[in-house]
Amino acid sequence: MNFSSKLLEDAVSEFGKLPGIGQKTALRLVLHLLNKEQAEVANFGNTLIKLKNEIKNCVVCHNISDFETCSICAAVKREKDVICVVEDTRDVMAIENTNQYFGVYHVLGGLISPMDGVGPSDLNIETLVERVRTTEVREIILALSANMEGDTTLFYLHKKLKEFNIPITTIARGIAFGGELEYADEITLGRSIVTRVPYEPSMLK
Amino acid sequence: MNFSSKLLEDAVSEFGKLPGIGQKTALRLVLHLLNKEQAEVANFGNTLIKLKNEIKNCVVCHNISDFETCSICAAVKREKDVICVVEDTRDVMAIENTNQYFGVYHVLGGLISPMDGVGPSDLNIETLVERVRTTEVREIILALSANMEGDTTLFYLHKKLKEFNIPITTIARGIAFGGELEYADEITLGRSIVTRVPYEPSMLK
Repeated sequence: MNFSSKLLEDAVSEFGKLPGIGQKTALRLVLHLLNKEQAEVANFGNTLIKLKNEIKNCVVCHNISDFETCSICAAVKREKDVICVVEDTRDVMAIENTNQYFGVYHVLGGLISPMDGVGPSDLNIETLVERVRTTEVREIILALSANMEGDTTLFYLHKKLKEFNIPITTIARGIAFGGELEYADEITLGRSIVTRVPYEPSMLK
Repeated sequence: MNFSSKLLEDAVSEFGKLPGIGQKTALRLVLHLLNKEQAEVANFGNTLIKLKNEIKNCVVCHNISDFETCSICAAVKREKDVICVVEDTRDVMAIENTNQYFGVYHVLGGLISPMDGVGPSDLNIETLVERVRTTEVREIILALSANMEGDTTLFYLHKKLKEFNIPITTIARGIAFGGELEYADEITLGRSIVTRVPYEPSMLK
């Protein structure tokens, strides 16, 4: 692209580095910001700088937090003896949005992926084992993505955690609500038949 | 969304204000930035602040520029007596990318749109008339979008400029290169037949 301004080009290049944002979208975003008030743009820039400078990871569960201990780990109401292991902050937010879970979390910070050079030591697995060893834990829920990296991590975590003799569970896989049987893939449908559960009218509420 | 961090929420909200970026995409972008080095994020923020603080509009053509006069208006090689009137900087860049135009530009900063409350006085039309009045102009090319706002602006500009007795042209409308006739809309196809041009083998190069 032929930019009439170096400042414009720099800003477009910064936005263009973000995932899923190409040059044309970046230009549209920058021109949108140019039409805003100076204070608004300054606020945008400073928010990002402040975010990176001040944000912390919770010392207990590694979730993104403004304080040493995140609001979930600090809440007295949460069941501290049920730990849900997830890949990243987005999964914590997704589960929190369901309003169905009242335990605490452990954020791995990724999944084991030899293809991308991510091994167990790159993830927060040691601290999870330590946490299970030193605190009273009633159940460990492994809520990981259903792909190859998720399955590898699941397998590794199970191997590391089974010695503690604590129930290890994983979230149910099956046909989604609103999903039609004929469009489901064979693996999901097959597994949902094998892992069928007793019918309860209250399940559909 | 339930955010575990106010800093995170603020950053997501800033990104979410940008056009075409929803909450989920904003979160993905912010988490991407969080994985970057502190210097990189600071650079992103400062580039935006600097952009808004330092960028200017060319005093001649109103194009976005780092200096008082933009690089196109300042270039000795450009034909100063041919003015191409466009909506915004993106159109200047699009035409520059063709490498087919060697005149100068006049950026209106929008199109007349009564629906959005944009009247002629909100655009850089007075300066265009002044420019045509005070400098020697050989041709005025109106390169505006082919929609209602573009047509309204075209009509208004023609009324304002016809007194100078300078050729006023508009970019050709028709079937795009690679476009198939059967998929073209009736208006485009109809106009492209009415405004047919003599065949020249060199046109297809």
